Amino acid sequence: MIRDMHDFEFQGLPWNVTFGVRAVNRLPQILARLGLQRVLILATPGRTRQVVMLQTVLGKSTAGLFAGAALHVPSGVVEAAVRAANESGADCTVSIGGGSTTGLGKLLRKEAGLPQIAIPTTYAGSEMTPIWGVTTANMKRTGRDPQVLPVAVIYDPDLLVALPPAVAAPSALNALAQAIANISTNPVVGMVAREAIRVLAGGLPRVMHDNGDVEAHAVMLQGACLAGAALGLGRSGLHHRLCHLLGGMYNLPHAETHAIILPHSVAHTARTAPGDAALIAAALGAEDAAAQVYGLLKKFCPRHSLQALGLSGRDVEQAIAAFDGDRDSAEGARKIMQDALAGGPP
Amino acid sequence: MIRDMHDFEFQGLPWNVTFGVRAVNRLPQILARLGLQRVLILATPGRTRQVVMLQTVLGKSTAGLFAGAALHVPSGVVEAAVRAANESGADCTVSIGGGSTTGLGKLLRKEAGLPQIAIPTTYAGSEMTPIWGVTTANMKRTGRDPQVLPVAVIYDPDLLVALPPAVAAPSALNALAQAIANISTNPVVGMVAREAIRVLAGGLPRVMHDNGDVEAHAVMLQGACLAGAALGLGRSGLHHRLCHLLGGMYNLPHAETHAIILPHSVAHTARTAPGDAALIAAALGAEDAAAQVYGLLKKFCPRHSLQALGLSGRDVEQAIAAFDGDRDSAEGARKIMQDALAGGPP
Repeated sequence: MIRDMHDFEFQGLPWNVTFGVRAVNRLPQILARLGLQRVLILATPGRTRQVVMLQTVLGKSTAGLFAGAALHVPSGVVEAAVRAANESGADCTVSIGGGSTTGLGKLLRKEAGLPQIAIPTTYAGSEMTPIWGVTTANMKRTGRDPQVLPVAVIYDPDLLVALPPAVAAPSALNALAQAIANISTNPVVGMVAREAIRVLAGGLPRVMHDNGDVEAHAVMLQGACLAGAALGLGRSGLHHRLCHLLGGMYNLPHAETHAIILPHSVAHTARTAPGDAALIAAALGAEDAAAQVYGLLKKFCPRHSLQALGLSGRDVEQAIAAFDGDRDSAEGARKIMQDALAGGPP
Repeated sequence: MIRDMHDFEFQGLPWNVTFGVRAVNRLPQILARLGLQRVLILATPGRTRQVVMLQTVLGKSTAGLFAGAALHVPSGVVEAAVRAANESGADCTVSIGGGSTTGLGKLLRKEAGLPQIAIPTTYAGSEMTPIWGVTTANMKRTGRDPQVLPVAVIYDPDLLVALPPAVAAPSALNALAQAIANISTNPVVGMVAREAIRVLAGGLPRVMHDNGDVEAHAVMLQGACLAGAALGLGRSGLHHRLCHLLGGMYNLPHAETHAIILPHSVAHTARTAPGDAALIAAALGAEDAAAQVYGLLKKFCPRHSLQALGLSGRDVEQAIAAFDGDRDSAEGARKIMQDALAGGPP
């Protein structure tokens, strides 16, 4: 432990964050500062109102719109988006949406060289990390590449007003998972992780109580920013490997999968690294970290088990068979997935 | 306040930190990773033992040694170091020492284009900031330039064993000053600042009790790293302006000047921004921030007043006359400097 915390390396990331209510209106100045002129807007199909708002803000700088972002960044979607980028003559992308949309922007940086400005509308945190992911034939590949970090991020709490609680709560638990995985990565990342957990745990009941509370969304976005920062500077753990495995194999909703698995992966941490679990509990302001996270899941999220997402015992067995790890982590993975399948208390 | 903390911008910095006991032995791998081959070692004249150690670690990669670093980075020293760099054919510098030596490396980056690897041997924190400074004819100019950030930093607590308490204590208060100035810069920098204060305040009594305690030096170096990070991501305030003004005019010892002024600049904060003073006090684990900092100064530092550094009332009057600021901050500056001159309780 002492050696771990006193012997470490870390690299900073060249984040460029603008945070504020209606900060999205500063987009033209941010583009000008970066020398970018022709924007391909990225979004999921449903975001018409926010896309229209962006087009208004961008005016003549709008080169095109690709509103086909999809869960887990399917490779076919990436190909279509690259074509749209080439046809539009864009010199950058501006993504507006959750992790799927931000993730598509990262692939456009990788495949078409376009720098990305990310405008998050959930607590996904991807905008702060150099982690990309793409899914081909039910297998999600992920990796780290400093190049895919967005060149600018705009956090605008106004964009989250009226975020449905059924989306906000799993998204918040997904953010929590990023911080929890990095609670003891090193003293610097651990500091960011603890603060992210503290801020998210404080803000979640407030947005759940009133999703029109801009102030509460600002708190949650700060927590999401910190959680993404912890994951970006730090590492993914067993929890993330399981979620990516299941998510890719069965096309599960990303944030909900994280939320449902989290209490059981925290229970795994309590069994294998009780000191880490104590740090997580302290940051949550709770006695028992796994029980506390399970309480948040039960209270705020609509679905509490992998079963409720449509998975069967057989699906989970197949995922366990596909899990690539040593025996200890495979045993841990089996218990986490089986417990999450049933969805009982951890 | 709410608007301040919910409306902000920040840029990350591409830090590249290696931390560990005997981490200095990893220098060859770090150079290789960065593609650097010919090192000009930078040090102050007194560091013979550490320079010899570095030369041993570097072997054939040593291109030269410039052991003429000096307080406040005099421009004549920079010119001499640039000549040494050119004659040696170095493609980088490795600085080993406190803030003066790290600061010289930054000027060599500016004036000769040489990337710097910094090995701090005090808690100066300069290695984490893009802030440079150079002194010509008793005037210290400072500025921010992302280019001068060292390309790598190696923190090795072993190098601080036997650091004299008379050096360590003012250096620690100098680090505290960097964090204190950024307690409410924005939520991200504020988090770093709070943690830096907490870690430094916890570690200082330990290194004062036993300066052979490597573990305690590791804690303090982590605090120094965080304090430098807060200053690097954040801003300098009134405190720093006064210290640079006095330090440049009268060639005062850098860290001691900060240490002596700090209780009085914190008292100024308590008068003008009581909310910030409360945050500082909480991070220190104290009731009254200024009184607590003054207690650390009295208990651990050898000198407690500007008078003890050799300044007269007239010197301070000249500094007040040279202070460039609006009336409110000039009044504040006057009171801080006069109180620090006498060195009584804030």
